[in-house]
Amino acid sequence: MMRTRPLKVALLGCGVVGSEVARIMTTHADDLAQRIGAPVELAGVAVRRPQRVREGVDPELVTTDAEALIRRGDIDVAVEVIGGIEPARALITTAFEGGISVVTANKALLAEDGSRLHQAADKAGVDLYYEAAVAAAIPLVRPLRESLAGDKVNRVLGIVNGTTNFILDRMDTHGAGYGEALDEATALGYAEADPTADVEGFDAAAKAAILAGIAFHTRVRLDDVHREGLTEVTAADIAAAQRMGCTVKLLAICERAADGRSVSARVHPAMIPLSHPLASVRGAYNAVFVESDAAGQLMFYGAGAGGAPTASAVLGDLVSACRNRLNHSRGPGESAYAQLPVSPMGDVVTRYHISLDVADKPGVLAQVATVFAECGVSIDTVRQQGKEGSDGDAWLVVVTHHARDSALRATVDALRELDTVLGVASIMRVEGE
Amino acid sequence: MMRTRPLKVALLGCGVVGSEVARIMTTHADDLAQRIGAPVELAGVAVRRPQRVREGVDPELVTTDAEALIRRGDIDVAVEVIGGIEPARALITTAFEGGISVVTANKALLAEDGSRLHQAADKAGVDLYYEAAVAAAIPLVRPLRESLAGDKVNRVLGIVNGTTNFILDRMDTHGAGYGEALDEATALGYAEADPTADVEGFDAAAKAAILAGIAFHTRVRLDDVHREGLTEVTAADIAAAQRMGCTVKLLAICERAADGRSVSARVHPAMIPLSHPLASVRGAYNAVFVESDAAGQLMFYGAGAGGAPTASAVLGDLVSACRNRLNHSRGPGESAYAQLPVSPMGDVVTRYHISLDVADKPGVLAQVATVFAECGVSIDTVRQQGKEGSDGDAWLVVVTHHARDSALRATVDALRELDTVLGVASIMRVEGE
Repeated sequence: MMRTRPLKVALLGCGVVGSEVARIMTTHADDLAQRIGAPVELAGVAVRRPQRVREGVDPELVTTDAEALIRRGDIDVAVEVIGGIEPARALITTAFEGGISVVTANKALLAEDGSRLHQAADKAGVDLYYEAAVAAAIPLVRPLRESLAGDKVNRVLGIVNGTTNFILDRMDTHGAGYGEALDEATALGYAEADPTADVEGFDAAAKAAILAGIAFHTRVRLDDVHREGLTEVTAADIAAAQRMGCTVKLLAICERAADGRSVSARVHPAMIPLSHPLASVRGAYNAVFVESDAAGQLMFYGAGAGGAPTASAVLGDLVSACRNRLNHSRGPGESAYAQLPVSPMGDVVTRYHISLDVADKPGVLAQVATVFAECGVSIDTVRQQGKEGSDGDAWLVVVTHHARDSALRATVDALRELDTVLGVASIMRVEGE
Repeated sequence: MMRTRPLKVALLGCGVVGSEVARIMTTHADDLAQRIGAPVELAGVAVRRPQRVREGVDPELVTTDAEALIRRGDIDVAVEVIGGIEPARALITTAFEGGISVVTANKALLAEDGSRLHQAADKAGVDLYYEAAVAAAIPLVRPLRESLAGDKVNRVLGIVNGTTNFILDRMDTHGAGYGEALDEATALGYAEADPTADVEGFDAAAKAAILAGIAFHTRVRLDDVHREGLTEVTAADIAAAQRMGCTVKLLAICERAADGRSVSARVHPAMIPLSHPLASVRGAYNAVFVESDAAGQLMFYGAGAGGAPTASAVLGDLVSACRNRLNHSRGPGESAYAQLPVSPMGDVVTRYHISLDVADKPGVLAQVATVFAECGVSIDTVRQQGKEGSDGDAWLVVVTHHARDSALRATVDALRELDTVLGVASIMRVEGE
């Protein structure tokens, strides 16, 4: 019953991910044909540097003219693994115009311009798949779009950037400072030469935008995601977390507000209790919690980056796109019917851990407590402890109840103004309870 | 763009799961319509006891004649949540004959007769979805069938039965005996009045058959799954595991043999190291590891049973089946092209932990070691330790290297024949390393 005319794939980009895609398409050709119902053939590979030797890729397939490859007229599916905004966006748009389905791993582009791409795919009646854009091989996009399509997702909470998780893990377990841990991550190949996208949280924020969009059936763009990286996380923060029975993780958090009328998406470092499953996610691994009305709490865990894991996700999508092609059908398109407003960070409800360096004298706690009260923030616990080797100072460690983030920030600003507060040693949100 | 004529659903069964499905279809009707692209309507609910009050279910929809409901001519999708072999099988078959797609949570039926059902669905050109049959809302069927469709799965290892996990957890953390832990599970509603399906491993074996079938593109039936329940697990086994830095879990294990030429599926209690993520799966939760060539190790975690989580999976499948209906397309059907032979348990490669009660005198270890050598089993570690309060006996704890299960069993039989072996205190396979 198998069709013999092969489906033709244009591979755009042949770096770490692309070369794995090409390799698996060759080595697993028979399995892919069986699973799709027709053979699938690599019709061309568009690269920037054609001279580079790519093991397992037929040099005759290599071209520098990606656009001509897409326009040649016989391509069924384009796999875009170039990354970045341009030329990826122009090439994907050209593909759609030519009636070609697209599989992409491009989180930056989807977070920036996903809706327009979805609309172009709709107009052309073709597929846009992007499982590989979030946490590589960990199935997240498909479970959220399809498995949970009959449920109501309230929260997505996860570690979606392996580089920063590696750095925080080193700071936590080896007592390394941020700079030292980053150097180690770079030496081991976990961090890129320019680590900005990872350490400033841009990568995680793009993933948060994509996940929030799917989870809440609402368009969420990168600009809608509150973003704090981990460059400000200090050894003092890590130590403060440890004293609280917590660890620090860079979390992507997508939430539906308690009243259900708005959603939010944010990326920032946060303390989570050691008993939380995310606390034990080590090294460069990723893990994502999804909380929904009926399913309750689900967790997805695995390698969130790397050539082979990302290629696995790309190929799963490729099989779907090819099957749809054969059946003259399409997978689910964009679902943005809910169009809930995306709250600014100030309106999001969070909890803070605040560690203050205070003068150890009567009345300090009263002063501090007054500031919290005036800002409308109620205190969950407060702990006062003398500082080792100091005769006049103490630590005052406050964990708040949930409050609007803007109120919490106003509290911190007001605390800094107090004469008795000598310094703010650590401020961090607390999640996962 | 939304179609106004509703898709019609026949709900077969209205117990714990069915009533949740009916409830969510009512409360989330608008969301479901948006996600499907057409309204979806509960057209009838077939039950055995129509007198029972079912909150939120319109009594006018209730019927005792399931077959007439399916045959009335306007049903698009049948949701089968009756369970068991008959009448579920006959009703599903009737549905397919009438061109109706089916969503089912029926693991027993799928493990017994899945291939025939898939063939009937193929013949009718309709869908058979069954995410809810394995680990309730935890997305496993869809990720294996679709997300990993471009990868090669080598192993599925998981806790897929909440009842037995609850019992083992109690035995491990509270030092309870099997009977006591079972009583507690029954009192809390985790175990049914007749716990056979859970404690003898039938439920887990059905899930293993389904998962192995999808993972290896091979038909695997319940009879192909080696099955050992946990009724033989003793407090001594749990204590032995703890001394090894392990815990005992009832595992479902689906494996591709090292040479790739055969597969196996089995359910049995096993020791796993405390450092393994499955070791920390508590209470009635489920978790499944999937290991594949490109994606590496993935883990899926969540509530593996219960009305709402199972309904979440059913509704996700319902949305897919309805979307396909609108698009005149189908989801992926059975993929059994590989048809690898399923190995009997004796040919599966495992490791054993064996704790022997031996006479504490010279030469015992030599005798024991000779038995292992004669059976062709090599020893990884051996530990000899005096028994508390005994003057002439000792424990001899042996952990083997990997060997054929039949050779390991022969070793145990031969050990029992030794005069110096006073008893076999604990035998258990070791997994997850």
